[in-house]
Amino acid sequence: MDPHIFPVALEKAHRLINHGPTVLVSASDGGVSNVMAAAWACALDFDPPKLTVVLDKTAKTRELVEKSGHFAIQIPNAKQVVMTRELGSSSLNDEPDKLARAGAQLFNIDDYSMPFVSGCSAWLACKRIAEPHNENSYDLFIAEVIGAWADDRVFQNGHWNFENAGPEWRSLHYVAGGHFYAIGEPLQGHQARSPALKKPRTLSDVA
Amino acid sequence: MDPHIFPVALEKAHRLINHGPTVLVSASDGGVSNVMAAAWACALDFDPPKLTVVLDKTAKTRELVEKSGHFAIQIPNAKQVVMTRELGSSSLNDEPDKLARAGAQLFNIDDYSMPFVSGCSAWLACKRIAEPHNENSYDLFIAEVIGAWADDRVFQNGHWNFENAGPEWRSLHYVAGGHFYAIGEPLQGHQARSPALKKPRTLSDVA
Ligand SMILES: Cc1cc2nc3c(=O)[nH]c(=O)nc-3n(C[C@H](O)[C@H](O)[C@H](O)COP(=O)(O)O)c2cc1C
Ligand SMILES: Cc1cc2nc3c(=O)[nH]c(=O)nc-3n(C[C@H](O)[C@H](O)[C@H](O)COP(=O)(O)O)c2cc1C
Repeated sequence: MDPHIFPVALEKAHRLINHGPTVLVSASDGGVSNVMAAAWACALDFDPPKLTVVLDKTAKTRELVEKSGHFAIQIPNAKQVVMTRELGSSSLNDEPDKLARAGAQLFNIDDYSMPFVSGCSAWLACKRIAEPHNENSYDLFIAEVIGAWADDRVFQNGHWNFENAGPEWRSLHYVAGGHFYAIGEPLQGHQARSPALKKPRTLSDVA
Repeated sequence: MDPHIFPVALEKAHRLINHGPTVLVSASDGGVSNVMAAAWACALDFDPPKLTVVLDKTAKTRELVEKSGHFAIQIPNAKQVVMTRELGSSSLNDEPDKLARAGAQLFNIDDYSMPFVSGCSAWLACKRIAEPHNENSYDLFIAEVIGAWADDRVFQNGHWNFENAGPEWRSLHYVAGGHFYAIGEPLQGHQARSPALKKPRTLSDVA
């Protein structure tokens, strides 16, 4: 495993997705591994950490999640924007070499059964909590987070450090039609409305 | 109503929250109106548009949502970061003047019953879809979006235009402990891995 990847305490795992990044969902079953993009993933609880993700019935990844009961959620970054879009634009149902064409490489962590995507900024190992009504009616999956890791070049001491990591580490926030925004500059919500608010770099003219 | 506020077609409403912003949830019942911050809101469907939001059992706003069956989700911006944090740090259960102290002003749109928060970038009128098991077990609420509006200074022709609007219009993305990031610069996911990727402004060195 890349020496930059280190475990994140489960009670801080929600911080990895709190800011609303587009994620990659990976799963494997019976020797088949796959990855798809998902903008509709969201934290659901702190302790034990849980999350939701919307998995359309047409997605091969959903079938692997249903069969194996496990998946990984990872936070891709700006250097992976083309790969992320490709993983969200083609299906393993149609393209057997989807992962290779998108340039997605997989790796394992310890004894966890789900595959993880190399080069991301953070990873969450997830165990599906079976909720058939949500899955059938809304394509909505609920999972418990049973492991969390991050790359120490962008997440340190329990905090994202986008402002000091290189721009290639910024998380991706999907809008539509292949358009993403990268995450931007930090803002402090606990300062009074005062000139102190001038600190954030790109917000020097917001009072 | 502010002349900058215009309706967004329902089939494009998901674009308002696709990029994972922290939102404000507002509701009213029996003459009581309230607003809270929520980082855990997420799109759920396109057409009809639906969304999920996590509303803790301790939140007064949740009680108003349960009683009225309606709420608004709005996307606050960088000039509202202190207000957003305050709306997420104090409860109407403890502070009867919570809204005034946070500086939150409410307005109405047409005949919609829920209150909307002034000065945000976009607004979604939501009708709760009763799912008692999700609400009780996970604090997870599902709603249909029945109306959508945006401020034309930051959302135009069905697209966010953060890059050309002033920095005060950037959406807020909460991490923890009063720390937010503003949304950043655009990235194109559909270009080949080529020098064309150099276009995004803050990413000139990402290949
Ligand atoms: C940026 C992006 C975000 C996406 N978000 C979701 C999502 O949240 N849920 C979903 O079901 N599909 C989403 N999709 C579409 C799937 O990724 C797409 O259907 C993919 O081809 C499924 O791959 P598979 O069949 O190989 O599993 C998204 C696509 C993109 C490009
Ligand atoms: C940025 C931010 C995001 C928050 N996100 C959520 C959330 O998604 N769900 C939730 O139940 N509480 C969330 N909270 C906490 C509520 O906003 C907080 O409990 C608030 O005081 C409730 O207000 P009320 O009791 O007046 O409704 C958040 C707080 C902050 C500061």
